[in-house]
Amino acid sequence: MLPPSVSILLRVAYDGTDFHGWARQRPRADGSPVRTVQAVLEDAVARLCGREVTVRGASRTDAGVHAVGQVAAFERCTPIPCANLVRALGDALPRDLAVTDAWEETGPGGVAIEPRFANLGKHYAYRVRTTIRRDPFAARYSWQISAALDVDAMSAAGQRIVGTHDFAAFRAAGCQAKTTVRTITAVRVRPQADGATIDVEGLAFLHNMVRIIAGTLVEVGSGRRDPASIDGLLQQPDRRDAGVTAPAEGLTLVEVHWPARGLPP
Amino acid sequence: MLPPSVSILLRVAYDGTDFHGWARQRPRADGSPVRTVQAVLEDAVARLCGREVTVRGASRTDAGVHAVGQVAAFERCTPIPCANLVRALGDALPRDLAVTDAWEETGPGGVAIEPRFANLGKHYAYRVRTTIRRDPFAARYSWQISAALDVDAMSAAGQRIVGTHDFAAFRAAGCQAKTTVRTITAVRVRPQADGATIDVEGLAFLHNMVRIIAGTLVEVGSGRRDPASIDGLLQQPDRRDAGVTAPAEGLTLVEVHWPARGLPP
Repeated sequence: MLPPSVSILLRVAYDGTDFHGWARQRPRADGSPVRTVQAVLEDAVARLCGREVTVRGASRTDAGVHAVGQVAAFERCTPIPCANLVRALGDALPRDLAVTDAWEETGPGGVAIEPRFANLGKHYAYRVRTTIRRDPFAARYSWQISAALDVDAMSAAGQRIVGTHDFAAFRAAGCQAKTTVRTITAVRVRPQADGATIDVEGLAFLHNMVRIIAGTLVEVGSGRRDPASIDGLLQQPDRRDAGVTAPAEGLTLVEVHWPARGLPP
Repeated sequence: MLPPSVSILLRVAYDGTDFHGWARQRPRADGSPVRTVQAVLEDAVARLCGREVTVRGASRTDAGVHAVGQVAAFERCTPIPCANLVRALGDALPRDLAVTDAWEETGPGGVAIEPRFANLGKHYAYRVRTTIRRDPFAARYSWQISAALDVDAMSAAGQRIVGTHDFAAFRAAGCQAKTTVRTITAVRVRPQADGATIDVEGLAFLHNMVRIIAGTLVEVGSGRRDPASIDGLLQQPDRRDAGVTAPAEGLTLVEVHWPARGLPP
């Protein structure tokens, strides 16, 4: 018998366009299932294990948000070695969802690993396109705007976000988090040939936080907001004073920072 | 009044995944329309012009095949200047289809320009992925195979294809072309981090010709066929002796070579 507390960790990538987000949802009123990343992944793992399995993710990405390095975990329920699990799951998954790595971990004291709390932070990237020339291959993965962007002003605004602050101005109306204090470790704005990419790294995030940061930085970059106005948003937080929630399609979960012991060999 | 023989030329890009190819098709038996690039484009132009319009393409790409630089033409039916047409059409098109340039031309003797015959050749690229690690962002645009590829052997085979030959071994069963002699001006096989890209340029192509060339070169690259076997396929053409038809999703129409007078200013 395998010990019951061994967790299988997965690195997961998906094109979020055709998923209703990460989290499994109840079937619709007419009984039809809602296609979510967690549900599709759980169904694939369940077929390998011969029973229902819960797969827990590090980030509950919204509908339309993509991931290159999501991390998920489930309790070992199959004797298939991790080295073969990537291919076994790959064959069972649709082409817009892939498992790119699998490894085993035992939680401290034999407790099941909960990726949402075990991770050391997350790196998101938000891509904005400013070129008038439309690009069907970028459209699924970027926010197309018509204004030119001042990347230096955006970087200056981003630096004011870095640190531990009350981010109540940067969360969705429905966000249930008990505290709105979060730590952002890095904001970088990289110019691209067709626009800019905003990298945001932090220990944890409120609901829609990266998308509201992106929307606010785009207002700075297009000259509609002063970089210094960020300070007011952090000192006297009011959601109405921050920028729009940038659309989901521009956002990608690039990496979930994971303790070194958990890195695949 | 505008002269009746002025053609508007469009450069068109599309993600072919959700299109049933370029060519407009009859509605299905239940009356539902078939989503093709030509039909969607014609509907958008018709809305601008207030009447039905035929848009003629340089390449009748198959279902699932992508394009970065398709060229299409229609007879001028709106006073909107070309400089504004790109945006006007952009607003009317779905995000997987874009018009990236528009310019005016008058055919020799005032005859309407037919892009299928007016072009100077086409450049297609076929992308093959060999990395076991699946990539949801590449899956729509590449053929995923499990063998490693010998790029040098593929290049050597590609060189044997260049020239004017009878390509009867490299056409689909249903191809109706009267002659099977075609001229291929270049074949390049470029190694990529996750596989290889096969560039094929030629004056004109038979149905499925690039996909059968790609399928044949992949057989060479994976050691199942000798580069020299290409000569036999060209000298004693038999479709059954050539490789498989590589899947549509790996193919992109990169560019339609166009006479210099037609280049946008």
